[in-house]
Amino acid sequence: MNTSQTILTGDRPTGQLHLGHYVGSLRQRVLLQHDHQQFILVADLQGLTDNGSNPQKISSNILEVMADYLAVGIDPQKTTICLQSALPALAELSALYMNIVTVARVERNPTVKNEIAQKGFSRSLPVGFLAYPISQAADITAFKAELVPVGDDQLPMIEQTNEIVHKMNSLTTTPILQHCKALLSDVSRLPGIDGNAKMSKSLGNTLTLSASEEEIHRAVSAMYTDPNHLRVADPGQTEGNVVFTYLDAFHADKAFVAEMKAHYRRGGLGDKQCKNALETCLQELLAPIRERRATYIQDKGMLLALLRRGSERAHELTQRTLHEVKRGLGLPVLF
Amino acid sequence: MNTSQTILTGDRPTGQLHLGHYVGSLRQRVLLQHDHQQFILVADLQGLTDNGSNPQKISSNILEVMADYLAVGIDPQKTTICLQSALPALAELSALYMNIVTVARVERNPTVKNEIAQKGFSRSLPVGFLAYPISQAADITAFKAELVPVGDDQLPMIEQTNEIVHKMNSLTTTPILQHCKALLSDVSRLPGIDGNAKMSKSLGNTLTLSASEEEIHRAVSAMYTDPNHLRVADPGQTEGNVVFTYLDAFHADKAFVAEMKAHYRRGGLGDKQCKNALETCLQELLAPIRERRATYIQDKGMLLALLRRGSERAHELTQRTLHEVKRGLGLPVLF
Repeated sequence: MNTSQTILTGDRPTGQLHLGHYVGSLRQRVLLQHDHQQFILVADLQGLTDNGSNPQKISSNILEVMADYLAVGIDPQKTTICLQSALPALAELSALYMNIVTVARVERNPTVKNEIAQKGFSRSLPVGFLAYPISQAADITAFKAELVPVGDDQLPMIEQTNEIVHKMNSLTTTPILQHCKALLSDVSRLPGIDGNAKMSKSLGNTLTLSASEEEIHRAVSAMYTDPNHLRVADPGQTEGNVVFTYLDAFHADKAFVAEMKAHYRRGGLGDKQCKNALETCLQELLAPIRERRATYIQDKGMLLALLRRGSERAHELTQRTLHEVKRGLGLPVLF
Repeated sequence: MNTSQTILTGDRPTGQLHLGHYVGSLRQRVLLQHDHQQFILVADLQGLTDNGSNPQKISSNILEVMADYLAVGIDPQKTTICLQSALPALAELSALYMNIVTVARVERNPTVKNEIAQKGFSRSLPVGFLAYPISQAADITAFKAELVPVGDDQLPMIEQTNEIVHKMNSLTTTPILQHCKALLSDVSRLPGIDGNAKMSKSLGNTLTLSASEEEIHRAVSAMYTDPNHLRVADPGQTEGNVVFTYLDAFHADKAFVAEMKAHYRRGGLGDKQCKNALETCLQELLAPIRERRATYIQDKGMLLALLRRGSERAHELTQRTLHEVKRGLGLPVLF
């Protein structure tokens, strides 16, 4: 046990992870695991909040996501990977927190408001979806996480968590819960290959981490550039040009990318050449990930065993927090 | 293990139990325990749904309610008494069910609607309170209860539970959950001694099971009768006359009560005489309960041990249901 800060992060297992996850979080987690106590939660319960009638979509993707983690270099010796539904303390803390948060307050949460609109829920909103900021606060606080990597659209979740921490700490005999801080990713959200701001499997505008050589080639070929850049000699726009956004996100040589951008803007650099540079870089990145992933996904027993071991470790920690909270509220801890 | 039907019942530990509980449910439970598998849930989590900011009110009453149970004759060898917050499966099943119930549906639940209005929640409604019909469905189904003793105001809860059962059974590979039936009490709700339909400690119109001889005497003396029955010779009304409502509820000799009622109606029977009959009967009922209760409440260690033993038994059963549901949804059961 070292004294480094505790991080909680995770993913809803709604499908295989893709390049957007890689840039937005996976890459960062591989770095953070060296000098932080990092927990990754496979958030199956949260995945069910808007897939309640389609549980197989969630359950079938738990080990897929595990394989993704290992393939990108998450080291289960350094990072604890655990399953949300295996940790009863999370549901129990949620149940306690739900009594100190009003319906009006969660309805006012900007993240929830946006998502309700996006998903077109209106009156068919599941109670679990409305309550998910509370459940997320339970996750964060159960681990006593100090840092939570989020995009800026998720900042209201951190604020709501800290409100709950503050209120709970005022109700228990001594303060038990830990306030948390957002760890903002320095890369903005990766757009889909079609330029759509949202990258998703259902839109067919993404590349999963298991994408084949051919799939990568086709995706880069189809990638959105500057629609007004008709001849090689023409000056082109690099802003909103997905090829350059991806080069920024993935190419190791920043000077080389800056050079290409300047050339493209003054004219004389074709889309083909830019796409070639990007494809080379993506093929190099994804080949070893794809290969490792293919091996891991064969061995479901190993993936389950790792998930079990991590969940056991997380169970111990989260039970401790739950028992502290119960005792702080005066509730008996019977066993 | 016999093949008799399973009953789930329980109380929110918001205070000591009183005569209303005795007539409405405790008396029935003492009878039912002989030929049913009866579970009594001390519903501390549900008690917190509208006492989230006052947890000590709930925690301090858990053992008080235990003492009440034993004092009236609930036999822990026959009835399993268990603590809601000690059973993680209940919170976990709630979390799963919340994803298949819409906000609109719980808002439409007539019982919840009434209670929201009564408690004056409006916009400050806690999420946990809105969700409590779902949590109640989790309780009932976790025990696979077939019979649930309720007042008729609680029938919408049974309906909502069976809707959840139906939906969940359609999502799992084989049907797992048990539909339940209401067991309606044949005694209607006991009014307060002041004639108010609602009996509650805060209104000061009730008698707890630990009431002293003097408290019983004072309560009966102050009891609401027929305000127009001014002289003994006058004919009096027995309808809405609390003394007669209580005689109906508590006096063992129904013929004697019928005789008194007829006499009162035709005139010539004084309130004092009726109250004397009632007081005798209440003193006889409550004296041994009060005495036993005083002994039990001294021995907190014994009460806790009984609650622990019952909760362990309930834990085993409810975990089994949870694991069946998880497996039915395809979710891994890691430990």
